[in-house]
Amino acid sequence: MAGSSLGTIFKITTWGESHGKALGVVIDGCPAGLELSESDIQAFLDRRKPGKSKIATPRKEADEVEILSGVFEGLTTGTPISLIVRNTSQISKDYSEIASYYRPGHADYTFDAKYGFRDYRGGGRSSGRETIGRVAAGAIASKILAAMGIDICCYTYSLGPVSIDETKFDRSAILETATAMPDKDADAKAFAYLENAMKQLDSVGGVMECRVTGVPAGIGDTVFEKLDANLAKAVMSIGAVKAVEIGDGCKVSTAKGSENNDSFTCHNGKLTKKTNHAGGILGGMSDGSELFIRAHVKPTPSIFQEQETVNKEGEPITVQIKGRHDPVIVPRAVVVMESMVAITLLDAMLVNMSSRMDKLIDFYK
Amino acid sequence: MAGSSLGTIFKITTWGESHGKALGVVIDGCPAGLELSESDIQAFLDRRKPGKSKIATPRKEADEVEILSGVFEGLTTGTPISLIVRNTSQISKDYSEIASYYRPGHADYTFDAKYGFRDYRGGGRSSGRETIGRVAAGAIASKILAAMGIDICCYTYSLGPVSIDETKFDRSAILETATAMPDKDADAKAFAYLENAMKQLDSVGGVMECRVTGVPAGIGDTVFEKLDANLAKAVMSIGAVKAVEIGDGCKVSTAKGSENNDSFTCHNGKLTKKTNHAGGILGGMSDGSELFIRAHVKPTPSIFQEQETVNKEGEPITVQIKGRHDPVIVPRAVVVMESMVAITLLDAMLVNMSSRMDKLIDFYK
Amino acid sequence: MAGSSLGTIFKITTWGESHGKALGVVIDGCPAGLELSESDIQAFLDRRKPGKSKIATPRKEADEVEILSGVFEGLTTGTPISLIVRNTSQISKDYSEIASYYRPGHADYTFDAKYGFRDYRGGGRSSGRETIGRVAAGAIASKILAAMGIDICCYTYSLGPVSIDETKFDRSAILETATAMPDKDADAKAFAYLENAMKQLDSVGGVMECRVTGVPAGIGDTVFEKLDANLAKAVMSIGAVKAVEIGDGCKVSTAKGSENNDSFTCHNGKLTKKTNHAGGILGGMSDGSELFIRAHVKPTPSIFQEQETVNKEGEPITVQIKGRHDPVIVPRAVVVMESMVAITLLDAMLVNMSSRMDKLIDFYK
Amino acid sequence: MAGSSLGTIFKITTWGESHGKALGVVIDGCPAGLELSESDIQAFLDRRKPGKSKIATPRKEADEVEILSGVFEGLTTGTPISLIVRNTSQISKDYSEIASYYRPGHADYTFDAKYGFRDYRGGGRSSGRETIGRVAAGAIASKILAAMGIDICCYTYSLGPVSIDETKFDRSAILETATAMPDKDADAKAFAYLENAMKQLDSVGGVMECRVTGVPAGIGDTVFEKLDANLAKAVMSIGAVKAVEIGDGCKVSTAKGSENNDSFTCHNGKLTKKTNHAGGILGGMSDGSELFIRAHVKPTPSIFQEQETVNKEGEPITVQIKGRHDPVIVPRAVVVMESMVAITLLDAMLVNMSSRMDKLIDFYK
Repeated sequence: MAGSSLGTIFKITTWGESHGKALGVVIDGCPAGLELSESDIQAFLDRRKPGKSKIATPRKEADEVEILSGVFEGLTTGTPISLIVRNTSQISKDYSEIASYYRPGHADYTFDAKYGFRDYRGGGRSSGRETIGRVAAGAIASKILAAMGIDICCYTYSLGPVSIDETKFDRSAILETATAMPDKDADAKAFAYLENAMKQLDSVGGVMECRVTGVPAGIGDTVFEKLDANLAKAVMSIGAVKAVEIGDGCKVSTAKGSENNDSFTCHNGKLTKKTNHAGGILGGMSDGSELFIRAHVKPTPSIFQEQETVNKEGEPITVQIKGRHDPVIVPRAVVVMESMVAITLLDAMLVNMSSRMDKLIDFYK
Repeated sequence: MAGSSLGTIFKITTWGESHGKALGVVIDGCPAGLELSESDIQAFLDRRKPGKSKIATPRKEADEVEILSGVFEGLTTGTPISLIVRNTSQISKDYSEIASYYRPGHADYTFDAKYGFRDYRGGGRSSGRETIGRVAAGAIASKILAAMGIDICCYTYSLGPVSIDETKFDRSAILETATAMPDKDADAKAFAYLENAMKQLDSVGGVMECRVTGVPAGIGDTVFEKLDANLAKAVMSIGAVKAVEIGDGCKVSTAKGSENNDSFTCHNGKLTKKTNHAGGILGGMSDGSELFIRAHVKPTPSIFQEQETVNKEGEPITVQIKGRHDPVIVPRAVVVMESMVAITLLDAMLVNMSSRMDKLIDFYK
Repeated sequence: MAGSSLGTIFKITTWGESHGKALGVVIDGCPAGLELSESDIQAFLDRRKPGKSKIATPRKEADEVEILSGVFEGLTTGTPISLIVRNTSQISKDYSEIASYYRPGHADYTFDAKYGFRDYRGGGRSSGRETIGRVAAGAIASKILAAMGIDICCYTYSLGPVSIDETKFDRSAILETATAMPDKDADAKAFAYLENAMKQLDSVGGVMECRVTGVPAGIGDTVFEKLDANLAKAVMSIGAVKAVEIGDGCKVSTAKGSENNDSFTCHNGKLTKKTNHAGGILGGMSDGSELFIRAHVKPTPSIFQEQETVNKEGEPITVQIKGRHDPVIVPRAVVVMESMVAITLLDAMLVNMSSRMDKLIDFYK
Repeated sequence: MAGSSLGTIFKITTWGESHGKALGVVIDGCPAGLELSESDIQAFLDRRKPGKSKIATPRKEADEVEILSGVFEGLTTGTPISLIVRNTSQISKDYSEIASYYRPGHADYTFDAKYGFRDYRGGGRSSGRETIGRVAAGAIASKILAAMGIDICCYTYSLGPVSIDETKFDRSAILETATAMPDKDADAKAFAYLENAMKQLDSVGGVMECRVTGVPAGIGDTVFEKLDANLAKAVMSIGAVKAVEIGDGCKVSTAKGSENNDSFTCHNGKLTKKTNHAGGILGGMSDGSELFIRAHVKPTPSIFQEQETVNKEGEPITVQIKGRHDPVIVPRAVVVMESMVAITLLDAMLVNMSSRMDKLIDFYK
């Protein structure tokens, strides 16, 4: 089916495989008049680029983006923005072997089950490289949100057992550390933990967090298109994410109502809440507080240890995966989560513009 | 915006408020030729009906469903099925007071922020009664899935600190216990815990689990319309759900790849997996194993303790909520989760029918 | 499939059959704060009501609408508006015979081909009564458009060979004549023509026209969601419409560019066009001139003459249709076309609100 | 808004401007396992390629297509197929002048009204080059339909006053004549007529017809997603089309029921119709007869005569358009119409697969 598009008004359609000629995205419904150049997008892509540290795949890809349409004299025109990134470092022979069997934790078997066969080179469409289109679109969504005073901050909360210390939160560290942690001490510990896991030919999971400030109240809808529901979908659609929490998330199941309810109050004439267990969303709509979303990411399924599996004929075999793989997905996925949150939130804000008769009349006056 | 519809082929549109004349749902895209009567749907609605135990709201509603269209001589015709449930026990005066202030943990404020005002009677559209349409549609989706050999089992895993003992799993208990727990011992403990919370004028959260067997491999899409992404959206869209997990969920973030990968194997000539950390989904598509989804539900925000909040003028006030409220949402929400999973899975299966040229050619031969 | 919904932001979902319990529509995405009562909607429904003249079916239906949700204290709340009209005058035995064969010009055969069987009573879902939901939704869309200064005027242009004389255009006559013609002389001639056709047990086709003034320039999109494309779909989706024209329509195919181009000019400081061959749409977007749409309607397929056809077994038979049928569809379809235009235009206007960065920033300031 | 996507299951998203770097399309939802190479698509693109005759723009474009994704070892994989055509012959200075005024019959003014400014080079997104994406996608849809025994034949019926003689219908002539007429005599007359119009610095309109055979009965839906409604939208969305007819089209408005009804009959054990006034569609669904669609195309708005208009300041001016323009749109648009019909029909067939319980059960057995 047509599963590579997302959004109602701000609609993105991604395409491309790990070892195909290129990957890209078409962004349709972007408001006209936004200043946009390749460098805006490149900045985001560089955050997910491989080959930057010992704890990322050594595959070297420039991941240079080209704007093919939708921008004229430096401004978006309102028509579809087509972005392309050429693949340059495919080494498909690394993968020819895996054509014959099903790697544990990968989508090899499910692709075959659905489509009858698969592009096995580097995971094809199920590769992490698929996120290039998401991130390129996310860069644009983020720029629009920033123009409305909305700030999104996404980072690594934990890798394996190593979590950040929230009292040491240092935003600048997110872009500086190899782990994307906002805490350089935690980064050092996590880095050591990862190096050890790599020695054991193993991989590690982790947690990403995302905080969004500046969102006006009332964004999102009240039944199926709840803001939290769409954020959950957007974040869960990132490969390897297995759980999504909003606000206190899992903790609410053991809380009491008297603990979990956030009291409203007024601060400088502005309605706000004394606490934010809700993570900024009530009844599916933003409440003006900080949005807080958390995602749990599984360890990279490509590990270099011997593993048991079956081949396409269903015979049990033992395999040892080769190729170039990240020992942990989280640090490079942080910008993907940030992008998915930006895309989802922006679309909800565009859709929200027609919620009231008075504003509609005013708009067309 | 139009946020009350869900689905691509099997599309449902719900409507209605807690204290309006009626609630209902239109199911469009239901295959023709399904035997369907009111009793099929009533059985599901009765599972969410209020007033059945001490730990549910004493509001008495028959919640009787009427089929208004789409069924002829006992069979669905392929045209929209319109279902209606009349409200009979509205006591709106209980709510007139809350028109003037914002209840903590409720959507009162966000509705006002979005729409400029709200139907404050019983929460209006954000009431739990909104789920009547979901459950009525879920009954139909479940009946279709059952005809394809797919079984969905949803239950209460925990209430507050009391969890079921999985070794004592007793499916029949789900429908027999007031807590919807599949373990009568845990039910007794949870019931006592709830009674105590009610004495303290407080409310309790909990966890729901859902297991689906019989799903063929390859259902779901590979990027945004991943089966897990759509399940996350569907389940997160249930009011009070704050976290969704697939398979091992949150646990994956501290696991290693060697622990989390599920080895493939062959059993009686059929490909299967030795473990199921993935919860039956790989790369966004079902892998033929049991689907496993978990949802964390916040405690009912309507508690009878005094709470601090502000009125519409932004002045701090102290309020004590009246009316008829469930001290815990989970037991009645279990059938809502089951319904949302059924609707989402069925739609994915209908959409999946055109994934292969050979099957397409064969279908139209 | 799910084919009974229309619209992106202002989304309607209709349901119901000719001889079912009721028909209705759910309108989702209606802006909050619109004054709305049953009488607003009833006024539109009364225009399509049967039994009002000799040239309409004698079936007597009150077609009384009830608002079931989405309106509180006289204002729309932004949540789904559910409208219902109960059927009261079904005489299904008139139709029991047609269960066994395929009426020429009707959807009996195609329903069987698609769904395997059909609700044959009065045409089931393919009955003209299906348009009740469209008209009820159209009443709301029209009220919103009127609040923005947009006026829609739809009328019968011709019945068989009898056309209106545009120089005698009298808008008030549309609601006063049985033919819905804006010209009482033409109405008299057409009425006589119809009476004669009825004596011959035959039926008659005709043309509807729709003019919309007050539409701002720039509504509609530039590729697939062109305003004219969506108007064509909306109008062609009305049963019995076989051709749709925009502006000069069919005439353009024999015109030269020098004749067909509309020169721009300025009138009282406002850009306008000297002519309007384009019918108010250029490149898929409104140009600020009057929208002009025309629809060609086939003669009612239910005629009382003997006709040849086959039964479900494929055997040739001769049939004579009974029941209560309009000898012409056009006069009662005029308000359906007006409704479809209103719904389509309003949705395009709501979607258009996010087309520009400057207006977006301004909206959320 | 996001107006460059079309389709529910077989979804296409086009992008690109006349004088941008490239144009293209993403086809999402294409069934896996279709043999596909660039040459399949090139054959369609060559039919719309400019510069092939005296009655087409002299702009020389190779319009060479490149497949960027979605095809592996010669087969579609079920993932998005990204196609790109690079622009090579942009001469933007021809157009710099038109930045300052509004060409009659063009979308210059409406683009400015909607987006605040426009890419004025060669019409930007409203150029006929936008149809490259449609045709590339249409090539794929047509190949799939052909594999199911469905044949689409689209051709020029008339240019100005010159129509084909249907008794001389010669399908091979469509690809051989510059006019795309299936009648070489009519082609010669039309060519002469066009040469004369060009001498007068004028342009000409015409009519396209499309016939589709082999469509099974029951394709399309019954209310808004009627097959004729979606065909009307798809065809009306082609720039310059101002009217769409199905079957007898406009003629039905002056026909009587006894003339317009098609009697059913049986031929070699197969249900068919004695006549086909309906154009193969009854109640929005295919009836197994030939589909017949007709489109009226306006004369090219770019003519070389002097024309009156206004500049962006609203001042009246006289302009003479330069550049390279087709004196008639129809011959090159025929393959665009064929593509839009193919895309629409294929999507309706994919969506239709879940219409019946028995077939659904059978599919997943």
